[in-house]
Amino acid sequence: MKRLLLILLVFATTKNMGQQMDNKAIETAMVKAMEWQEAHPIFALAPTDWTNGAYYVGVSKAHETTKNPIFLAALKTQGYRNHWKPLYRTYHADDVAISYSYLYANSTRKNLVDLGPTKEFLDTHLYEPNKWKDGTDKNKEKKILWWWCDALFMAPPVITVYTKQTGEEKYLDAMHKYYMETYDLLFDQEEHLFARDTRYQWGVNEKDLKEPNGKKIFWARGNGWVLGGLALVLTDLPKDYEHYDFYLNLYKKIAARIKSLQHEDGLWRTSLLSPESWNHGEVSASGFYTYALAWGVNNGILDKATYVPAVTKAWNALAACQHENGMVGWVQDIGADPQPATADSWQNYGTGAFLLAGSELLKLER
Amino acid sequence: MKRLLLILLVFATTKNMGQQMDNKAIETAMVKAMEWQEAHPIFALAPTDWTNGAYYVGVSKAHETTKNPIFLAALKTQGYRNHWKPLYRTYHADDVAISYSYLYANSTRKNLVDLGPTKEFLDTHLYEPNKWKDGTDKNKEKKILWWWCDALFMAPPVITVYTKQTGEEKYLDAMHKYYMETYDLLFDQEEHLFARDTRYQWGVNEKDLKEPNGKKIFWARGNGWVLGGLALVLTDLPKDYEHYDFYLNLYKKIAARIKSLQHEDGLWRTSLLSPESWNHGEVSASGFYTYALAWGVNNGILDKATYVPAVTKAWNALAACQHENGMVGWVQDIGADPQPATADSWQNYGTGAFLLAGSELLKLER
Amino acid sequence: MKRLLLILLVFATTKNMGQQMDNKAIETAMVKAMEWQEAHPIFALAPTDWTNGAYYVGVSKAHETTKNPIFLAALKTQGYRNHWKPLYRTYHADDVAISYSYLYANSTRKNLVDLGPTKEFLDTHLYEPNKWKDGTDKNKEKKILWWWCDALFMAPPVITVYTKQTGEEKYLDAMHKYYMETYDLLFDQEEHLFARDTRYQWGVNEKDLKEPNGKKIFWARGNGWVLGGLALVLTDLPKDYEHYDFYLNLYKKIAARIKSLQHEDGLWRTSLLSPESWNHGEVSASGFYTYALAWGVNNGILDKATYVPAVTKAWNALAACQHENGMVGWVQDIGADPQPATADSWQNYGTGAFLLAGSELLKLER
Repeated sequence: MKRLLLILLVFATTKNMGQQMDNKAIETAMVKAMEWQEAHPIFALAPTDWTNGAYYVGVSKAHETTKNPIFLAALKTQGYRNHWKPLYRTYHADDVAISYSYLYANSTRKNLVDLGPTKEFLDTHLYEPNKWKDGTDKNKEKKILWWWCDALFMAPPVITVYTKQTGEEKYLDAMHKYYMETYDLLFDQEEHLFARDTRYQWGVNEKDLKEPNGKKIFWARGNGWVLGGLALVLTDLPKDYEHYDFYLNLYKKIAARIKSLQHEDGLWRTSLLSPESWNHGEVSASGFYTYALAWGVNNGILDKATYVPAVTKAWNALAACQHENGMVGWVQDIGADPQPATADSWQNYGTGAFLLAGSELLKLER
Repeated sequence: MKRLLLILLVFATTKNMGQQMDNKAIETAMVKAMEWQEAHPIFALAPTDWTNGAYYVGVSKAHETTKNPIFLAALKTQGYRNHWKPLYRTYHADDVAISYSYLYANSTRKNLVDLGPTKEFLDTHLYEPNKWKDGTDKNKEKKILWWWCDALFMAPPVITVYTKQTGEEKYLDAMHKYYMETYDLLFDQEEHLFARDTRYQWGVNEKDLKEPNGKKIFWARGNGWVLGGLALVLTDLPKDYEHYDFYLNLYKKIAARIKSLQHEDGLWRTSLLSPESWNHGEVSASGFYTYALAWGVNNGILDKATYVPAVTKAWNALAACQHENGMVGWVQDIGADPQPATADSWQNYGTGAFLLAGSELLKLER
Repeated sequence: MKRLLLILLVFATTKNMGQQMDNKAIETAMVKAMEWQEAHPIFALAPTDWTNGAYYVGVSKAHETTKNPIFLAALKTQGYRNHWKPLYRTYHADDVAISYSYLYANSTRKNLVDLGPTKEFLDTHLYEPNKWKDGTDKNKEKKILWWWCDALFMAPPVITVYTKQTGEEKYLDAMHKYYMETYDLLFDQEEHLFARDTRYQWGVNEKDLKEPNGKKIFWARGNGWVLGGLALVLTDLPKDYEHYDFYLNLYKKIAARIKSLQHEDGLWRTSLLSPESWNHGEVSASGFYTYALAWGVNNGILDKATYVPAVTKAWNALAACQHENGMVGWVQDIGADPQPATADSWQNYGTGAFLLAGSELLKLER
């Protein structure tokens, strides 16, 4: 009996040491990814655009989990250089995504970050009229504030953490109002996935856009924005907030569906219902999914036995997409629908998704 | 007969694959050069000075040829940080060289780049009086707008691409007027080379400056600015522009002369007529020459059989000047006449010349 | 006899070549340290805070000794980006430390650096009333302008080099006045070390703070600021300045004491009188000491036979704290008293101390 206990103990210790070694490898991979990205700044519109917004959400979470100052140093440097300002289009959810990182920096040191520009953006975005909110834009898909599903990553997590830090709960109600509009418009109740925007829905346009296999177009990254955004929202939303369960249930539904669509190599394809279109793993969507699913396990929402193998396999496959020099490849470029990636295609938000995934993997009891 | 065809086919394919492998190696070398340079920002006067101007011309062309977003990311980042502004001395051609990269960025995305400051600079530079243009400067060599041959790289390519993008052809006439002044003043009709400025001419100063071997001083980089600048100008100048042939013929003359001065190791010496003064290859001049000669071949202006071996040899020698970490060495420092370089001497414009050379080598049928 | 001479000559040459090889290795280590730091910008309050101030003092001295333009390029880039401005708290010595690097840049090129903001800071700092100078701050340790010993590194070296460049000697008198206040308050005449501030003194507080071994708390980095600052001050202070000997004698006293406290592995512990508290070398303090002691030898102030082995051993131990990628580890984080470091703990001022040490090691006849 003693001997058995000893053996068990040795096993337990070994496993633990194994995880420690894994965690060291994960953190090293994350640091290298961040270092490469910092050495290759990129933007579409400006250093404060959504591409950087998403990247620095990843850097924020990487620091929160690891406490490695190397992440915070990079995050503060960009915030300082950007004067802690969102981009200027106050009608556009994309342009406030960067504020997530400012709010994170604010949580690390008092009187460092100027939250004024973020508050100003949110006040205008949520409470002032604009062409999308008012439905006066000439593009017929742009008839609500958050008319494309990516927006659910860009603005809501900023709003929940802003509310958490300031205590001003009125912002949650505004968020919920616009979130419901998007949900009502774009969530496919049969597929449990979000259409990217109304152009990809069936029965509402002149012609239904279809995949070559005749199925609906559900974009992997689009649903990555939603599922990743939900994990971020649920992290900061008060558990007693009246609509908390709406977000929790939506998260669970999408999580289950996404799990079912994982390719056996661990990664997801850019077209969720037509994986054969571009039959290779794509890292930005897969990173957001891995983050969100691991977050669910770590927070007791998703079943360990079911999900731990899935996210572990996903992480290993993500890690294999990183080049020796730290660059994270296999990232689909900026777009709105499924398109291919290559081993050499990279983008800052792909690195962000990688960091998000790593930040929850490090917490996963494996 | 079939067998012969098969053998020929195999040869052709092999050669093609060989070139693909070479091109991969060239692009890798270019990426490494750019990455090292971005990690070592340097300026003489400001991040928008001519040293960076020349560097980012190289980055522009590297992106244009490869479409590798890694180059465009770096280029846009500097443009954004510099607010798309030239440096402030509107009388000085050096200070508008950086606008070449802004114009290139403008060609990749609408409404990203503010060309206002560039237009303002050109309008003042070309159409307002100043001490050089008016000949009122106290330095006796500074009596025309572009009184030193480097200027023919700094301003004219910006003017031709600006005209191409805006359609305002009046700028070409202003350019031609000042270009002719410089040509008339500094081009040596016997040597088919440019004096750097009047200090290096014979018969116009109190004392004729000479190389130790008694010959005239023709500076390699100075003529690199001219020849490289001509290739850039000819790229964007309308073929039906009335003075097009002047530039084409000047290009051909200098190209032939430069070809004849290439050292057998593939690189040029800093003093063209006194190679023994500093008997080692210099990378900034050699890079500009390699770019310009390869451009001539690629555009059907120079004879392939004669020039392909020369530029291939030159590129291989340039590539050998790159350090393992990406740094491009053997670059003569800022100056106005032939001076030595070392394996460890670098400058951003040297990296720019390297990138320019690579951007045309990639297109060369070898 | 001839043979003996020959042998001696061979020895001498060999030693010389050995030193050249060592110097090459030292410079390479310095370049790598700087490159890593530039790739990992970090600040506490702003890019112009004291942490960067101390780092760029190191970069300044690295360039001064090596003339390697790679250091000056980094230094000028930060100065330009910071608009050559100190941080804003004019009552706080920390906030002018960065001006040391601006003054150094100014010494390399005329009309590049705007010294206006530095002059404005010094004028306010030295000649206008403030809460510390006036003793009206509510914190009882903050009753003089430079109430903490770190301040003797932050402001005095800026003042001496500013005076040297401008010739305005009145600043020296102001410096001396405040330096003496700090000296009178914090220098322990028995231990020949500085208390970090009055909280660490005995007999002046309600309760005497003690190390576990019952001794006084003398913080290694705190005394590193003082001793390193003294070497910097003495470098630029006119030898005929009336209080020159005060600084020279203080330097000698502390240098001797610090020498006696060196651990046999070459590095100093964070608690000078309780080395066993955190029994490992700490790089920021050790770097400043190594710099200051080597400076004393190189300037004929300290005895070669005694100090050369000490600083050589110290440098070798410092060099062993550098990671393969250039990162300088074993640096205690921001603080006010002895705390532990790890192989992975880094900070920009630690890199600065490393560069300072290297800059004097390169001059050391070994």
